Amino acid sequence: MTQRNSRIRKKNGSPEAKEHLSFIALGGLGEIGKNMYVLEYNDELIVIDSGLKFPDSELPGIDYIVPDISYLEANRDRILAIFITHGHEDHTGALPYVLPRLDVPIYGTQLTLGLIRNKLQEDLPLYRPDMHEIRAGDVIKIGSFTIRFIAVSHSIPDCVALSVDTPLGRVVHTGDFKLDSTPIDGRITDYGAFAEEGDKGVMLLCSDSTNAERKGFTPSERIISATLDQLYRTYRSKRIIISSFASNVHRIQQVADVSARFNRKIAFLGRSMIRNVELARDIDCLKIDPKMIIQIEESWKYSDNQLVIVTTGSQGEPFSGLVTMSRGENKSIDLGEHDVVFLLASVIPGNEKLVNNTINRLFAQGCEVVYERERNTHVSGHASSEELKIMLNLVRPQYFVPVHGEYKHMVRHSQLAQEVGIPQRNIFLMNNGDILTFTRSNPPKKYGTVQAGAVIVDGNAAGSIKSEVLKERREIAEDGVLVVGASVDDRGNLLAPVAIETQGVFISEDTKQIFDELYAASERAIQELAGQGRRVNIDALKKTVKARVRDVLRKRNSSFAVVLPVISVRQSGYYDDISTYEKDFF
Amino acid sequence: MTQRNSRIRKKNGSPEAKEHLSFIALGGLGEIGKNMYVLEYNDELIVIDSGLKFPDSELPGIDYIVPDISYLEANRDRILAIFITHGHEDHTGALPYVLPRLDVPIYGTQLTLGLIRNKLQEDLPLYRPDMHEIRAGDVIKIGSFTIRFIAVSHSIPDCVALSVDTPLGRVVHTGDFKLDSTPIDGRITDYGAFAEEGDKGVMLLCSDSTNAERKGFTPSERIISATLDQLYRTYRSKRIIISSFASNVHRIQQVADVSARFNRKIAFLGRSMIRNVELARDIDCLKIDPKMIIQIEESWKYSDNQLVIVTTGSQGEPFSGLVTMSRGENKSIDLGEHDVVFLLASVIPGNEKLVNNTINRLFAQGCEVVYERERNTHVSGHASSEELKIMLNLVRPQYFVPVHGEYKHMVRHSQLAQEVGIPQRNIFLMNNGDILTFTRSNPPKKYGTVQAGAVIVDGNAAGSIKSEVLKERREIAEDGVLVVGASVDDRGNLLAPVAIETQGVFISEDTKQIFDELYAASERAIQELAGQGRRVNIDALKKTVKARVRDVLRKRNSSFAVVLPVISVRQSGYYDDISTYEKDFF
Repeated sequence: MTQRNSRIRKKNGSPEAKEHLSFIALGGLGEIGKNMYVLEYNDELIVIDSGLKFPDSELPGIDYIVPDISYLEANRDRILAIFITHGHEDHTGALPYVLPRLDVPIYGTQLTLGLIRNKLQEDLPLYRPDMHEIRAGDVIKIGSFTIRFIAVSHSIPDCVALSVDTPLGRVVHTGDFKLDSTPIDGRITDYGAFAEEGDKGVMLLCSDSTNAERKGFTPSERIISATLDQLYRTYRSKRIIISSFASNVHRIQQVADVSARFNRKIAFLGRSMIRNVELARDIDCLKIDPKMIIQIEESWKYSDNQLVIVTTGSQGEPFSGLVTMSRGENKSIDLGEHDVVFLLASVIPGNEKLVNNTINRLFAQGCEVVYERERNTHVSGHASSEELKIMLNLVRPQYFVPVHGEYKHMVRHSQLAQEVGIPQRNIFLMNNGDILTFTRSNPPKKYGTVQAGAVIVDGNAAGSIKSEVLKERREIAEDGVLVVGASVDDRGNLLAPVAIETQGVFISEDTKQIFDELYAASERAIQELAGQGRRVNIDALKKTVKARVRDVLRKRNSSFAVVLPVISVRQSGYYDDISTYEKDFF
Repeated sequence: MTQRNSRIRKKNGSPEAKEHLSFIALGGLGEIGKNMYVLEYNDELIVIDSGLKFPDSELPGIDYIVPDISYLEANRDRILAIFITHGHEDHTGALPYVLPRLDVPIYGTQLTLGLIRNKLQEDLPLYRPDMHEIRAGDVIKIGSFTIRFIAVSHSIPDCVALSVDTPLGRVVHTGDFKLDSTPIDGRITDYGAFAEEGDKGVMLLCSDSTNAERKGFTPSERIISATLDQLYRTYRSKRIIISSFASNVHRIQQVADVSARFNRKIAFLGRSMIRNVELARDIDCLKIDPKMIIQIEESWKYSDNQLVIVTTGSQGEPFSGLVTMSRGENKSIDLGEHDVVFLLASVIPGNEKLVNNTINRLFAQGCEVVYERERNTHVSGHASSEELKIMLNLVRPQYFVPVHGEYKHMVRHSQLAQEVGIPQRNIFLMNNGDILTFTRSNPPKKYGTVQAGAVIVDGNAAGSIKSEVLKERREIAEDGVLVVGASVDDRGNLLAPVAIETQGVFISEDTKQIFDELYAASERAIQELAGQGRRVNIDALKKTVKARVRDVLRKRNSSFAVVLPVISVRQSGYYDDISTYEKDFF
């Protein structure tokens, strides 16, 4: 890796010949999550976003995944800043991992920095980040980069796109966006600014591919109000429980507005919900009459038709408000036939099972549940095909890289770009780590790779788990582990009978007989090697025991358990009288 | 369990007083899969369906799940027959497990029995099932039951519903159905027969709840032809790869018909696809001109626009045709830019990730992939709300039990039943194992339970895995296992240093120091117990070692691994001189 980095710098050895601009993704291509993009002009480097990704079931025991930032660590002194487009975790969640390692300034809008500050206070209470607040419309100059921040609408307020001017050309990075014509906060995507950048000439556009598969337009966030209005009427006499993303401030605003119209008080439940509401209200992103808000503990004072409870758990998160309610384990709220639950969120791929189980349990508690898509209980925050084509036509870039999506989304987005007239040879389908390099003299091309990948954060261990460890976990998860324990002297003679333990192993039949065979086979293996009279070779011994035990399991067709020999050696000159010893237990 | 069974029989001790009809689900309620229903009139018992369920990621290493049939095994001599409604695995897949244990006759239609025969030949080549072929329209009498088989349409041909007449009343069980007005084989759901049963009077209806959440009507299977026609035109010059359910004979028929119109040959790929096509053609359920079918090995002889490859893998099954192609590992077919893949199937919940990965890999191979729902590439085989209400109105049952669905589907189905006028008190939301009992004198009620649950089939082991074993697997899957091996004499003195091995364990930092502490802690624990001079208590020893090792891990905040001590005892009178011994290695 370090070789590759130095190779890049060497190839561009002399100041003139080496003038180049490179675009690299360290995360976010071929996946939804862990967005992190790098723009590199000669020796200067800026980073856009630092997101995490939640693991799927193939990574048991993993909390979350962040980008491998080896490339940035190796080039730490060249990094000018990290720019964050918005406050979602797939764009900010890696900061507690990234910042202590790079310690560079961060730029973001007020809400974005507020959310990051909360996160850092929790994970790194002693770290003092160097934060710079920017607003949409601002233009700042850092090194050779001139960066203009452009307002975009999305499913969280205060989002920006970046137009980055460099001596070699202009790069527009949209961040996550949609073209919502009636956003809740009135802050629409700034068509004019994108058009202006387009007029000045954009060399490269990097645009959000999430919904490239979807035809037409993504509906406005505002339709949720109409849905809520109708639902509040239908369930006029019931207590209303609403679950949504804690970061979707616009949606919480709509819930608050409709609740006010129906004279219902709101109680917020769930740590991240309470914290985000507080932050958003502090900076005036969320406007709720204080008299409307009550504490969950006083909710018993209100009758069902006077109350709305807004809580976390729309993704079936195990310890969230909604999930504990569905299990009848929430200390504040017991659900029953007088309740209706609205799930105002889509299911993030990978969470289907958790959400579905939650819905089934809610029904079993006797309450009504409103969750169907047909009811317009959710709209996406990402632009659909027609919006993506509008963005392409506003910016009219020379070159195009679809970002922020799985491979299928990037392919569909590149097809849209071709529809609006960008030639296929000017579109680059990239992988994380690919280096796309622009120079004055030659057309851009993919030029090698830097190290990119996933760093896995497991529990308290804020380090990277080796993929080997995960492979081992998957192996034992499949069929369990069978451990063969033995102690031998330095010639390999057994000091006591072999012991066998299992965890998660299923032996079908004749359990006793199979275990007898396993004991016999492993002891025989040890004795055979000991019989050679040489000093014990512990690795060879383990290998032989493992092979023999596996043979028995395979022959008996009884288990594919992982076999793990645990053998200790007594390293003294001390020597047993084997013949006496053997009599004792064989 | 056996107690409960006998209790049922005892309570109904005298012939008159005990006359009763009970409905019990052993699987299929609160879940999609492992359908198995029991109707019991006094001492006679019939079973409807014997299905399996595929496990989700929470059950690592499990092949499939079948119903717990303890109740049937305990009452084996009272079972008259098993009736199979259709050939899908969630209705037939448990037969290789169930039949050798119960050895009772099976009744089914020609295609259903053919599929079962294939399955049994593979899993139980020596078992000779007692099979009885029936046709829609047949009426048979078994014991006190008179059973009429009624044609229904679904996503596999030759499906039947059952109307079971008993001295206490009539029970209609729909099986899986939809009201397809233009089915591919022209065999529509027999409205007349259901209406006739309704006229005669139906006490209980048990009906398919799968799509109770969906508004309106499920589209006809026939719309796939129009989609295919359009797709074949759009991709006129490409080689076409189609993946679908191997059992969806109607869909394969449509592919064959459209392929014939476009003068394309068909090559089938995938064992279950080839076997099902053969069976369906043998019994005339599938009509393809033999001249149209070629072997996959000769496919190279045909140009892209002369060929369609029909294969398995629509659910992303790891060794299926489509998935091996997507990995570039199929020995017959290499995909490239000249190919287009049509996925003519929906994603079964739980398979989202597998299917999505397959689609992304197909795109990465350079081919076009058509998979969107908007393209009408799939229609469901299950009735939606309007159809379910028609069924309820045809049969007009006195009582209603929604079956075949998760809890949320059953709730929605019960709401539909109330809409058409069935009072809520006459609708029973049941769980697997609940006994719903009808008598002459009293209204029906849920009357206790029988044992019901999941038996897990793991690899070659056709037995049931204890849930304990699965819990152990989940534990080690989360954080790995740390094994402490030791051999001691009969007083508990160590015979050699402790050995430690790990599998899937992630130790964050100071690995060496933590391991030193782990060795020291476990040896100290063993020595302390040995110091008491009593005969070794192996369980107490293991417990202590486990606790001490966990303390170290917890204190160091480094891992939540499962700790597994493996300790062997040398049961002789042989006794080491500890003081000499200790010097050697402490």
